[in-house]
Amino acid sequence: MFVVMAVGATEEELNAVRAVVLDEGLTPHENRGGERVVVAVLGEGGPRIDRLADRLSAMPGVESVNPSNRPFKLASRQFHPDDTVIRVGDVAIGDGSFTIMAGPCAVESREQLLETALAVKAAGATVLRGGAFKPRTSPYAFQGLGLAGLRFLAEARELTGLPVVTEVMEPGQVEHVAEYADILQIGARNMQNYSLLMAVGRTGRPVLLKRGLSGTIEEWLMAAEYVLSSGNPNVILCERGIRTFETYTRNTLDLAAVPLLHQLTHLPVVIDPSHATGRRWLVRPLALGAAAVGADGILVEVHPRPEEALSDGDQSVTLAQFAEIAAAVRPLHALVKAQGRDEILSPTQLRVDGGRH
Amino acid sequence: MFVVMAVGATEEELNAVRAVVLDEGLTPHENRGGERVVVAVLGEGGPRIDRLADRLSAMPGVESVNPSNRPFKLASRQFHPDDTVIRVGDVAIGDGSFTIMAGPCAVESREQLLETALAVKAAGATVLRGGAFKPRTSPYAFQGLGLAGLRFLAEARELTGLPVVTEVMEPGQVEHVAEYADILQIGARNMQNYSLLMAVGRTGRPVLLKRGLSGTIEEWLMAAEYVLSSGNPNVILCERGIRTFETYTRNTLDLAAVPLLHQLTHLPVVIDPSHATGRRWLVRPLALGAAAVGADGILVEVHPRPEEALSDGDQSVTLAQFAEIAAAVRPLHALVKAQGRDEILSPTQLRVDGGRH
Amino acid sequence: MFVVMAVGATEEELNAVRAVVLDEGLTPHENRGGERVVVAVLGEGGPRIDRLADRLSAMPGVESVNPSNRPFKLASRQFHPDDTVIRVGDVAIGDGSFTIMAGPCAVESREQLLETALAVKAAGATVLRGGAFKPRTSPYAFQGLGLAGLRFLAEARELTGLPVVTEVMEPGQVEHVAEYADILQIGARNMQNYSLLMAVGRTGRPVLLKRGLSGTIEEWLMAAEYVLSSGNPNVILCERGIRTFETYTRNTLDLAAVPLLHQLTHLPVVIDPSHATGRRWLVRPLALGAAAVGADGILVEVHPRPEEALSDGDQSVTLAQFAEIAAAVRPLHALVKAQGRDEILSPTQLRVDGGRH
Amino acid sequence: MFVVMAVGATEEELNAVRAVVLDEGLTPHENRGGERVVVAVLGEGGPRIDRLADRLSAMPGVESVNPSNRPFKLASRQFHPDDTVIRVGDVAIGDGSFTIMAGPCAVESREQLLETALAVKAAGATVLRGGAFKPRTSPYAFQGLGLAGLRFLAEARELTGLPVVTEVMEPGQVEHVAEYADILQIGARNMQNYSLLMAVGRTGRPVLLKRGLSGTIEEWLMAAEYVLSSGNPNVILCERGIRTFETYTRNTLDLAAVPLLHQLTHLPVVIDPSHATGRRWLVRPLALGAAAVGADGILVEVHPRPEEALSDGDQSVTLAQFAEIAAAVRPLHALVKAQGRDEILSPTQLRVDGGRH
Repeated sequence: MFVVMAVGATEEELNAVRAVVLDEGLTPHENRGGERVVVAVLGEGGPRIDRLADRLSAMPGVESVNPSNRPFKLASRQFHPDDTVIRVGDVAIGDGSFTIMAGPCAVESREQLLETALAVKAAGATVLRGGAFKPRTSPYAFQGLGLAGLRFLAEARELTGLPVVTEVMEPGQVEHVAEYADILQIGARNMQNYSLLMAVGRTGRPVLLKRGLSGTIEEWLMAAEYVLSSGNPNVILCERGIRTFETYTRNTLDLAAVPLLHQLTHLPVVIDPSHATGRRWLVRPLALGAAAVGADGILVEVHPRPEEALSDGDQSVTLAQFAEIAAAVRPLHALVKAQGRDEILSPTQLRVDGGRH
Repeated sequence: MFVVMAVGATEEELNAVRAVVLDEGLTPHENRGGERVVVAVLGEGGPRIDRLADRLSAMPGVESVNPSNRPFKLASRQFHPDDTVIRVGDVAIGDGSFTIMAGPCAVESREQLLETALAVKAAGATVLRGGAFKPRTSPYAFQGLGLAGLRFLAEARELTGLPVVTEVMEPGQVEHVAEYADILQIGARNMQNYSLLMAVGRTGRPVLLKRGLSGTIEEWLMAAEYVLSSGNPNVILCERGIRTFETYTRNTLDLAAVPLLHQLTHLPVVIDPSHATGRRWLVRPLALGAAAVGADGILVEVHPRPEEALSDGDQSVTLAQFAEIAAAVRPLHALVKAQGRDEILSPTQLRVDGGRH
Repeated sequence: MFVVMAVGATEEELNAVRAVVLDEGLTPHENRGGERVVVAVLGEGGPRIDRLADRLSAMPGVESVNPSNRPFKLASRQFHPDDTVIRVGDVAIGDGSFTIMAGPCAVESREQLLETALAVKAAGATVLRGGAFKPRTSPYAFQGLGLAGLRFLAEARELTGLPVVTEVMEPGQVEHVAEYADILQIGARNMQNYSLLMAVGRTGRPVLLKRGLSGTIEEWLMAAEYVLSSGNPNVILCERGIRTFETYTRNTLDLAAVPLLHQLTHLPVVIDPSHATGRRWLVRPLALGAAAVGADGILVEVHPRPEEALSDGDQSVTLAQFAEIAAAVRPLHALVKAQGRDEILSPTQLRVDGGRH
Repeated sequence: MFVVMAVGATEEELNAVRAVVLDEGLTPHENRGGERVVVAVLGEGGPRIDRLADRLSAMPGVESVNPSNRPFKLASRQFHPDDTVIRVGDVAIGDGSFTIMAGPCAVESREQLLETALAVKAAGATVLRGGAFKPRTSPYAFQGLGLAGLRFLAEARELTGLPVVTEVMEPGQVEHVAEYADILQIGARNMQNYSLLMAVGRTGRPVLLKRGLSGTIEEWLMAAEYVLSSGNPNVILCERGIRTFETYTRNTLDLAAVPLLHQLTHLPVVIDPSHATGRRWLVRPLALGAAAVGADGILVEVHPRPEEALSDGDQSVTLAQFAEIAAAVRPLHALVKAQGRDEILSPTQLRVDGGRH
């Protein structure tokens, strides 16, 4: 349930609304970003919720009380009608610009990282990616350089000025990684690792939340809700392909998720065409596709010598290929932006239905 | 196995190659479209295939003998290196232009169809779509107008000059529908209806072959192979979303299939964003996405009054929305085309693997 | 909507009900099998359906009018509370016995078929399976012996007394195949080939309807509805595995479908463990699993020399293995039957929801 | 690669083998459980592996060197030909008996837990399940009683003598939960939470490892490999349904996984029919199905009053229903066991192929 306060509602009126919500054992959470304050009512309402809605509707300063027909609240456009813009250093994500995050799958050495960082910076990347802790299917595969990798990332940031996104794999690691990283990445396999989501939620540091291999859009937004409700409003959603029956590609990239999410949520959405396809030569067309459907950016795996990569070499593009991708995607994004964005529809107009639980 | 003849190989040399293939109980099939003649060797080779390859390699006029590591032969780029261009009246599909097929899901009345046909023509559509025979999940749902629908389609063609694509549902219907239709559509549920594929294969009429709900790319190309090997080289592939676990969209549109197919096959590929999403407001961004990934066109459901549609109203755009989509997609296609297309890779470079059977 | 007539309702009362339904442009269809006559009201009702329900409820001889919250009507338990029992010669399917259908994937020769038929008969099979027309992914693969295969099947029936089930692939073939076959099989790839479903529906001959690779249970029952509404009440459902992301097995066998279908429908359900797994050594445990979850029978691929099979050799069991399977499954079925079957729940107790369309 | 030592090979011979493996930078790991010692060679071999195999083959005391065509090693039957039997108090899992784990989804109160524990013990359960820390899709849903829940579980164990299985959600929690729990459960959403797998691996406490919603069998065994290679040989695999397109059931139970896993691995496999179906009335038939396909046990959610359950009420059976299930499943397991188990096949006989990565 969302309580939309009237324009010009007073703090007393707002306080009264909060008191009523708290009195029911529920939690009020405000968005003051737009013209009107919106209060999300968090908790499991049960049958008494209708009575509460009636009561709140009648209060002074309340413009309307809107039911929420979906389980996510703070992630919802109903709560937060304006786009969330996330700022990391000089970079803004979700403000209508096109963010290009690029770098190696794994940090393998100081040289490999710095060479890549300088090249992607020169080609137009705005964020540097690189894994220091790598979740690998096999316990016998390269697991990342760990702390040394984090230090190389910090050095690359110094050198290039690019903010850094890197993966964090467990709650106990969060504080440590947050010392080095500008954006904390939650990998696809951890999308529903709730302890980890709450841990990154407590830091306030921007979070790049990858969609799980079999994560529905609703579950993904609920994962974001864990971060948001832990006090961290800075979540970037990253679609990276879902698992289907098809085997010619590593995963199936769900580009429809981008315009759909732009209706359902205020959070920015970026696309990872590298993991989505698992094939270097599919990255360029899907990066263009990402811009065309309105994504806020892309996340691309780049390696100076992909054939020597310790992980995901097949899907890493070379430095030269990355430069081509960046050069191709910018004018396409500009064209799509100039054509104007789609109108935000009401929940009833959307006619989108879950049904999985 | 593909036998690539040398430039300037004589007819006698070619005949000798054919004789050797036939002598093994296999069928030679030539592509004379490019600079070099390529002979596909069709049939199940078994162990003797290696010996045959050696023998063919040593023959005069043979440049090389290439193994085929995939089950599709006539649909393969190895057999037919140049793009297939399909001509229907004044329209060419697969020649680098962007084909827009549009019209109602079902022909519901003469008025509805003519109104739609004139409007989509005016907005820039180049092919008219409309269903006269409708495969419906329920036997109690509207099954299409049948013959009357075909007649209205022919009238709409007269009126607008647009060629017509319409679905055919059973072998016994093919000849009849082919009298009225310029392009015969095979629906997703019939992708592996082999009797029907062979029947449309025998007509020579262009075929729009939709991907099945759970059809792998390999199976889809094998379905095309049924049409091609029945003597009909005019197949257009249509990706319309696959079935996954996600329920917020009707299907999951696999846009990566477009650049992947452009590597694997010479056949044109179009996108149906209407069935892919099931939501009218997702059609525009995914039409743009289709152009961005290099599709040869789109197939869009349009209805003058979607809320009154007898089928698929939720995913049909209005006449005005269609005009916007057509206006937005053309410049984007032009931009992508100007950026140049991806190089065609060799089978070993692709590193694409099936494994489902 | 289902109109349940009172015990002892007269023909006049029933006629009056039918007249009212017809008057609304809808079609009444009666089940007189049980204690009470149930009238299914077929067609797309729209908003006027509530008014009709009120009117029917008030009519003499009507005990109750039950809404149907699912799209299938004639396939529903609400329409037909008793189990459908299908009789083919001396064999009854769905009467609580365990039907074992066995035979080769494809009829390859007279000798291969007769050897197999005699062996499976001796081991306890009650129906002989064998394909004369084979739907193959590749147009270059063995497509079956066709008419000659049908004749061998008829001869095998003469020899063994076993009724025969064989696949029919197109409407034009149905009459012909029905001359030879006791049960007409609709393959998984044709589950939504509506022309074919209506064609077998018009014969009255029992139909074995396989579930499509991505067919939901609702769509599968709607496919059965096509057969039933064409006038043929003799449908056997066959679960044969669905397509999922898993590749270690050919498909994923959905054994939960059996007890679920026994709630939703009155039609018998059999299991095909051969296609479900694609592995000969998985057939035995899954045949036992089928009996344990309450299936009405199994369909097993058997070949005297699987390593020489022209199709599906990997999943065909030998004659000896089949004998072991038949011997193991009978006592298990007897035990499960002795434990009693689950109570049939009301639609509201089921709390099963679709949501895909 | 697995090095099978000859019967009677000496410690010196074994030490020499280990030295050679270590010398290559790889790790030897021995199974001394059977008649012959088997040494698994762990690590990423690369091209030099063939040379190493030749060298090891020629060493005294070595019977054979077998390549491993799958990524899991310690979890493989090749490494550990005998079944792993896991002992928890008086209970043995994987020894041919049928383990019944039962209890509430979540521990909600002392009374609810003790009432359930006494009832399931009386009905024949051998392990008590109950969640103290609950991974919930929504941050606003009941998250479990935490420490208090653990204490109630310990009390229930005292009262009934049943060992306790409960979920652990993060590495920092493992030590704490291990004080109270006899078996540590890794939930489906954490199947690839590698930090957590290594943490439970370091405890030595038995682990119940649930299959992820989109976890392939290969990935699942690789998750087990993380636990095994961390020094903990006590892993029980739990199949609980995978995510597919079907929505009538919560998940699709993959019972074929049981006999498949019994070929691939030595670890015991149990079935969770509650999460697999999401429907209480499907638990009984699928529990029988589990026993029929050879599972080592089941895990069932039981609640004294399911309609009041704080989580998963729809899939929890009542105390009376549980008693019926336990009574039905025991004789079926006895019958299947008496029929004998399937022979263990060699890797080449299995012809099982992955292909997803």
